[in-house]
Amino acid sequence: MDAHTVGITMGDPAGIGAEIIAKGYSKLRADDRVRPVVIGDAAVLRAAVENCGLADELAVVTVESVDRAPAETDAIPVLDLANVDCDAFEYGVVREDYGSASLEYVERAIELVQEGTIDAITTAPINKQATKLAGSEYAGHTGMLADYTDTDSYSMMLIEDDLRVTHVSTHVPLREACDLVTTESVLETIRVTDDALDELGVDEPTVGVAGLNPHASDGGVLGETEAREIEPAVDAARAEGIDARGPESPDTVYVAAARGAYDCVVSMYHDQGHIPIKMLGFSGGGRGGSGDGRDGNGESDADGDATVSGVNVTVGLPIIRTSVDHGTAFDIAGEGVASEHSLIQAVAVATDMAARRGAR
Amino acid sequence: MDAHTVGITMGDPAGIGAEIIAKGYSKLRADDRVRPVVIGDAAVLRAAVENCGLADELAVVTVESVDRAPAETDAIPVLDLANVDCDAFEYGVVREDYGSASLEYVERAIELVQEGTIDAITTAPINKQATKLAGSEYAGHTGMLADYTDTDSYSMMLIEDDLRVTHVSTHVPLREACDLVTTESVLETIRVTDDALDELGVDEPTVGVAGLNPHASDGGVLGETEAREIEPAVDAARAEGIDARGPESPDTVYVAAARGAYDCVVSMYHDQGHIPIKMLGFSGGGRGGSGDGRDGNGESDADGDATVSGVNVTVGLPIIRTSVDHGTAFDIAGEGVASEHSLIQAVAVATDMAARRGAR
Repeated sequence: MDAHTVGITMGDPAGIGAEIIAKGYSKLRADDRVRPVVIGDAAVLRAAVENCGLADELAVVTVESVDRAPAETDAIPVLDLANVDCDAFEYGVVREDYGSASLEYVERAIELVQEGTIDAITTAPINKQATKLAGSEYAGHTGMLADYTDTDSYSMMLIEDDLRVTHVSTHVPLREACDLVTTESVLETIRVTDDALDELGVDEPTVGVAGLNPHASDGGVLGETEAREIEPAVDAARAEGIDARGPESPDTVYVAAARGAYDCVVSMYHDQGHIPIKMLGFSGGGRGGSGDGRDGNGESDADGDATVSGVNVTVGLPIIRTSVDHGTAFDIAGEGVASEHSLIQAVAVATDMAARRGAR
Repeated sequence: MDAHTVGITMGDPAGIGAEIIAKGYSKLRADDRVRPVVIGDAAVLRAAVENCGLADELAVVTVESVDRAPAETDAIPVLDLANVDCDAFEYGVVREDYGSASLEYVERAIELVQEGTIDAITTAPINKQATKLAGSEYAGHTGMLADYTDTDSYSMMLIEDDLRVTHVSTHVPLREACDLVTTESVLETIRVTDDALDELGVDEPTVGVAGLNPHASDGGVLGETEAREIEPAVDAARAEGIDARGPESPDTVYVAAARGAYDCVVSMYHDQGHIPIKMLGFSGGGRGGSGDGRDGNGESDADGDATVSGVNVTVGLPIIRTSVDHGTAFDIAGEGVASEHSLIQAVAVATDMAARRGAR
C-alpha cells in the first residue's frame, strides 16, 4: 500500500490551525496510508504542542524537503517557512504579517502539489481580514486555488455524515446569487459534482438538484428559474449520462438526501446548502470544529460506524484540496481546547481521494 | 380548569385529514383542557374511523351546534357540513367539489371563532390545486385567514422541538422575497413574533433575526440589505423593548437557536426558515406527519420531556390558528397509515394559547 503525502497548511498563526494539527497528529498517523507534512512555521507549531500539553510525547522537526520527512509518528514534520516573528507573537489578532504568512503556506503547498511532491492539500483556516490587509485579492482559499490552477469550473462541497452539498455560487449577495443560476452554471456544477462523487468513491452517483424558489416554484407559480434555467441543465446532464434529478423543492431535498435518496445536492446559493449541513452537524450531537460551541468528538455515529463530517472539498480543481469546516476561532486560539475532529476528517478525505487517483 | 373548544377543520376529503383526526382523537381527549369539535363531513370521518380499524371503539356523532358537543371521549363530534357526495367518493384525487368543501370547513370555523363559539382553529391540510379549481384566490389557509380577519401583519411560525422560526415572506419567488425585506416588513415580523412568543408562554422572549445574504453580508462585503433594512428594524424593535438581536449569519443562527440562544428566528424568506426546521425534524428521528416518509411517534425527546414538533402557527391574527406541518399526502390517503402526531401537537399548542388568552 502506498502512502500518500498530504500537505497541511498551518493557517493563520494567530488562529487554532497549529493546535488542531498538534492535537490531531497522532490520530492522523494511525492511518498507515497518510504521510502528513505541515507547511507552516515550526516555532508556532512548537508553542501549540506546548499549549496542548503534548510536549512530552510529540516533537516538531523541520524538514528541508518533503522527501526527507521522518517516518516516526512522534514528531511532526514541518516545512518551516519561518515567516512569523515569535518574539512578538500573539493569538487571536488580525495582523498583516500573519495574513501574509498564511498566504505563503498555501502558495508553497500549491507549488508542491503541482510539481508532484505532495499528493493533496488540506488547509487549516486563514483569516480573510488578515489576508486582505496583506494585499490578497482572494476572498479565501478557494478562489486562490482556482486561480493558481487556471480552473474555471469548481464548487465548494461540504460533507456532513451522509449529506453532501455543492453550490452554484457561494460568497455573493443573494440577489446576485439568483442571477448566477443559469443553465450553464448549474450544468457545470452538476458535472463537477458528479466527477467529485466518483473521486470520493461513490458508485453510480445520484445528484439531486435543488430549485431556487420555494417548492421549486410549484410548477411555475412561484418563479420561472426552474423551468428556464434549472430543468434544461438537469436534462443536459442526464443526456451526458449523469443521474441528475430535479429541480427538487429546496425544503425537502436535503432531508431526502440525508435519508439516502441523493449522494449530493447541488445547491443554488450559499445558505441553501450551508444551513442543512450545519443543522445536521448540530443534530449529530456536537463534534468537531471549534469557536462555534462544538466540543464533542463524535467520530462515530450512534451505530459506531465511522462517518465523515465537517469537511469542505473544493471540487473541480486539477489538484486535491480539502479543508476543515470551521474558522480561525480567534476567541479560543492558544487555549488548546479547539477540536481536531474536522482536520482529521479533512485529511482522511484527501487521502482517500489521492488513493483513488493513484489507482487509476 | 376551563375546557377550550378547538375547532378542527377536516381538510381535503381526499387527503389524510379525516384519518389523522380518527387516529388522534383519543389522545386529544387525554388532555382535559381540550374539547375538540370537527368541522367537516361525518360520512368521510366515519369511513376514516373504519379504515383505521377503530370502528369498535370510536363513534362519530353529528352535532347541531358546538354547544351540544358530547362529553364522551369515545365519539368524535362533528359539525357536519355534508358537502361531500359519498356515493362517488375517492381518495387521493384533486377535485373541485373537494376543494370547495375544504374551503367551506375553514370559512365556518372562522365564523365560529369570530362569534366566540370556539376558542381556536386547528386546520388539517387542504389541497391548493383543488381549492384553485374551486375558484379560491388564496394560496392556502394563511392568506384566507388574514383576509377574513382583516389582518395586515402576520407570519407563518413553524415549531420543531426547541426551534421556532417565523418568516418575512413565504410563497413568493426568491428574487421577490429579497425585495420584500424592508425595514417595515422586518420590524412587523419581529413584533408579531415577539407577541406570539408571549402567547406561547415564553418568558422574556429573545428574537434572533437572520440576515438575507451569506454571513449576514460580512459587514457589507456581501450585500447591503443588512445595513440598510434589517439593522434599522432590529434597532427599532429594541427601542420598543423587544429583545431582538441581529442580523445574524443565516447559516449559524438556526443552530444557535436550536441550542437555546433564541426563542425564535425571524427568517427573511421561505426556505431560510423551512430548511432548518425540516432538517431538525428529520434528525429528531422521524415523527409525525405523513407522506414524507415520517412514521415515528416521537412525542418525547431523548430525555423523555414532552416537546412540540411539527406545528405551524399563524402569528399576528386576532384569532388562534394552528396547523399540521404536512400536506394532504394523497399517496397514502385512505390507508390509515398517516401519523396523527402533528395534529395532536397542533391542537395542544392551540389549547395552550387559548388558555393563556383566557387567563388575561
